[in-house]
Amino acid sequence: MSTRIAHAGLRRKVMSARDAAALIRPGQNVGMSGFTGAGYPKAVPQALAALMGEHRARGEDFRIGVWTGASTAPELDGALAEADGIELRLPYQSDPVSRAKINAGTMEYIDVHLSHVAQMVWEGFLGHLDVALVEVSGITEDGDLIPSSSVGNNKTWIDQADAVILEVNSWQPLELDGMHDIYYGTALPPHRQPIMITEPGDRIGVPRFRCPPEKVVAVVETHAPDRNSAFKDPDAESRAIAAHFIEFLDREVASGRIPPGLLPLQSGVGNIANAVLAGLADSGRTGLTAYTEVLQDGMLDLLESGTITLASATAFSLSPAGIERFNDNVAFFRDRIVLRPQEISNHPEVIRRLGVIASNGMIEADIYGNVNSTHVMGSRIQNGIGGSGDFARNAYISTFVTPSTAKGGALSCIVPMVSHVDHTEHDVDVVITEQGLADLRGLAPRRRAARIIEQCAHPAYRPMLHDYLERATAGAWGRHTPHLLGEALSWHQRYIETGTMALTPAAAAPLRPTAPS
Amino acid sequence: MSTRIAHAGLRRKVMSARDAAALIRPGQNVGMSGFTGAGYPKAVPQALAALMGEHRARGEDFRIGVWTGASTAPELDGALAEADGIELRLPYQSDPVSRAKINAGTMEYIDVHLSHVAQMVWEGFLGHLDVALVEVSGITEDGDLIPSSSVGNNKTWIDQADAVILEVNSWQPLELDGMHDIYYGTALPPHRQPIMITEPGDRIGVPRFRCPPEKVVAVVETHAPDRNSAFKDPDAESRAIAAHFIEFLDREVASGRIPPGLLPLQSGVGNIANAVLAGLADSGRTGLTAYTEVLQDGMLDLLESGTITLASATAFSLSPAGIERFNDNVAFFRDRIVLRPQEISNHPEVIRRLGVIASNGMIEADIYGNVNSTHVMGSRIQNGIGGSGDFARNAYISTFVTPSTAKGGALSCIVPMVSHVDHTEHDVDVVITEQGLADLRGLAPRRRAARIIEQCAHPAYRPMLHDYLERATAGAWGRHTPHLLGEALSWHQRYIETGTMALTPAAAAPLRPTAPS
Repeated sequence: MSTRIAHAGLRRKVMSARDAAALIRPGQNVGMSGFTGAGYPKAVPQALAALMGEHRARGEDFRIGVWTGASTAPELDGALAEADGIELRLPYQSDPVSRAKINAGTMEYIDVHLSHVAQMVWEGFLGHLDVALVEVSGITEDGDLIPSSSVGNNKTWIDQADAVILEVNSWQPLELDGMHDIYYGTALPPHRQPIMITEPGDRIGVPRFRCPPEKVVAVVETHAPDRNSAFKDPDAESRAIAAHFIEFLDREVASGRIPPGLLPLQSGVGNIANAVLAGLADSGRTGLTAYTEVLQDGMLDLLESGTITLASATAFSLSPAGIERFNDNVAFFRDRIVLRPQEISNHPEVIRRLGVIASNGMIEADIYGNVNSTHVMGSRIQNGIGGSGDFARNAYISTFVTPSTAKGGALSCIVPMVSHVDHTEHDVDVVITEQGLADLRGLAPRRRAARIIEQCAHPAYRPMLHDYLERATAGAWGRHTPHLLGEALSWHQRYIETGTMALTPAAAAPLRPTAPS
Repeated sequence: MSTRIAHAGLRRKVMSARDAAALIRPGQNVGMSGFTGAGYPKAVPQALAALMGEHRARGEDFRIGVWTGASTAPELDGALAEADGIELRLPYQSDPVSRAKINAGTMEYIDVHLSHVAQMVWEGFLGHLDVALVEVSGITEDGDLIPSSSVGNNKTWIDQADAVILEVNSWQPLELDGMHDIYYGTALPPHRQPIMITEPGDRIGVPRFRCPPEKVVAVVETHAPDRNSAFKDPDAESRAIAAHFIEFLDREVASGRIPPGLLPLQSGVGNIANAVLAGLADSGRTGLTAYTEVLQDGMLDLLESGTITLASATAFSLSPAGIERFNDNVAFFRDRIVLRPQEISNHPEVIRRLGVIASNGMIEADIYGNVNSTHVMGSRIQNGIGGSGDFARNAYISTFVTPSTAKGGALSCIVPMVSHVDHTEHDVDVVITEQGLADLRGLAPRRRAARIIEQCAHPAYRPMLHDYLERATAGAWGRHTPHLLGEALSWHQRYIETGTMALTPAAAAPLRPTAPS
């Protein structure tokens, strides 16, 4: 048995994943660990999926509610979705099997601001939490739980569930111990107090989760890696977007609107975000900080080079190569990284106070600067809003990034009207594509439109967008935010019907390859 | 000369409104006091409008940028708009002349979250502020300024402008002195500190504005009432909405999800909000509090009856009768009212900490719970988003209210897709019409739709909405949030073309009168 379980009473609760899974009953709500493919339980969900299959073979339905930090991995979301075992999923996911079922209408999904989840559970708004299923790195003699590679909502799951199932994953580096800052100062109103973080590195909690040992009904040992998908090297589009972003930051510093050490950076997950980090590494700046959700490979470079001196997040999202680098230099990184519960990493109070510079990906923006982060063609969920709303609304400067086209040019990511709104014009300061950057601050709607079309739209779609804006300004029912309602969503409808937003297939032909202007 | 100007140096700067107005130059940005028809300058804007007219008669353009707290009155917005004197208006307005010009495309308007305005000015994102034009109740011997009936952004205007013009309005009760709490602790990041309010009545500032006397270029004496529009007695629809809201609060208390003393209440401005307050007065509850933007007549009743013991806001919005009651009992109200800068009354940090129960009006909601607060038929601005985003995103429970129909039934306020989004599905917990209340917490999109249609839509529009949802679920490109993009905005287009959202004029005929179910 692993030496990672130092508490005698909990050692006696070690059992197989199958036995642990059998403690979960149909219809229960299960709060699972996991955030962006890090720190999710690796064994019990698969055992549970197998049990579900056996039930179904006997003609019995077995489905549960699955609540997590954010996205997990095939071993969790994939396995349970394949088994048709998820009744309701929240607050974020990115699994292809789950996505297909949600969009087929056979799995329910609630898309929630990541900072809101814990409080909604404490408030009782989501129903009762029956079981917490949480991966940890180890258990101390006192029964405290050493967190794993993500924190997410684990504190809330452990506190709120009737019963706790632990997976102790010996693959996770034990050196994670001490890196986390678990804040136990949250409360329900009228008892809430200020969250006393004034710098990204401030520690206001304790390094481990508390959990009464009698609440633990099972301990399962695992030795399995996190999802760890590899990042592609930034492509030309991502590098162009990163260059626009960094040029913008330079201008803001030069104008005196942000200090030379910038302000804490937040960046979404993915290759564009990683390219921005790579661009920062080349920018010559030092002494920056990050107050963000997830630490990607690029952040390790920045920490090692001294570009960034401190990074706060709720989870890692490292590639296999990144994990190796992290493990090789873990003492160095421990002093420079704080992992927090997602209600704190994403807390509006802290984000606004720190003055975070936010950069989030999106599916599409419209000419007036409304942003769709979640729905393809207005109806199909892609992943979810994640923490983008927590950051965008409260940021010092809120930027959104996307390539100007997708699907080989068949989709314009700048459209007359977005098919779903996650971030309103009120919360979008800057839009960036590989074509350029539109600074929308202080602009009324029609000026925003002109700037977005000119700076961000792909040249192949620019004439269509100009044409729409002109005709809308002439013919709309009002000229504040002119729209032709019969036509506003026609680009999306045309894509559904013809496979392209372009008016003729020929119009989309010159779309690739294109050099950024 | 009024005894209200106790500072000798500033007494020497008293001049006519016309002379003061002449200090404002074309192209300047002017930060004016005023929030919901309270505390706006009464004389200089009209004198300025006259000057603009004279300039125009000479063939010279004279327009300025007008920044305020929120809406003002005909003497300010109306006069300057009539004179074609506003180049750009922000962050909120409700003046019919301005609205017409904005929607004709001849005046620019930027609609901003009210909590964001001050910081955007400090950050330098809106350009330079040249002049502050602020109504006060008086000037002390030391040159401190006794605020008037609204605080709004006045602290920021006085601090940030190159020059300050004061209107000292002797109509305002001097007893206002001591009622305000002007917080001087804001800063730009990285120097921001927690805002140490943990109860609605906490005072963290000083009662008066500081202003270096040498910065004041003119003092103008006035004796003129605030706009003070009278409230109608709540109609049957407003009373029905209020009853649903209060029944909901009772259920939440009974379930233990909110404490018996409730949580601090925020309610938007207008007759429905006033009806909710009247309903609370009849509810038998005592010891409640309010953390809101504006104090209407109904709040005076609640304070006098002890239903509410403390109300925090940034402005009054009292009817003439309400003003009289306030003046008759001003010592009583002073102990129970705190007026704050709008960056504090609407601060996300404080709203989330206090756990405010928010209730805001809207133009329309769609079946999935997205809310349009600002744009009629997607293109025409009505007023603006005001503080609804500050409250909805950060509230303990976020409710939105509207009658189920407007224009005598020609408009359904529940539509397939809103024509503009100000509050996304992520920020809307509860929708209330006179028909009923839809509690959307913990529901996936199609369940939200079914509940909104059944609980909130007018019976005359319910079959059309059910039909849309059914056909969309069957035929949309995805079933997570099913929409038929060619049809989603057709109700609005039909209204523009035919004057009703109903499919046939006959369908709208039975719409009035209707009893709430």
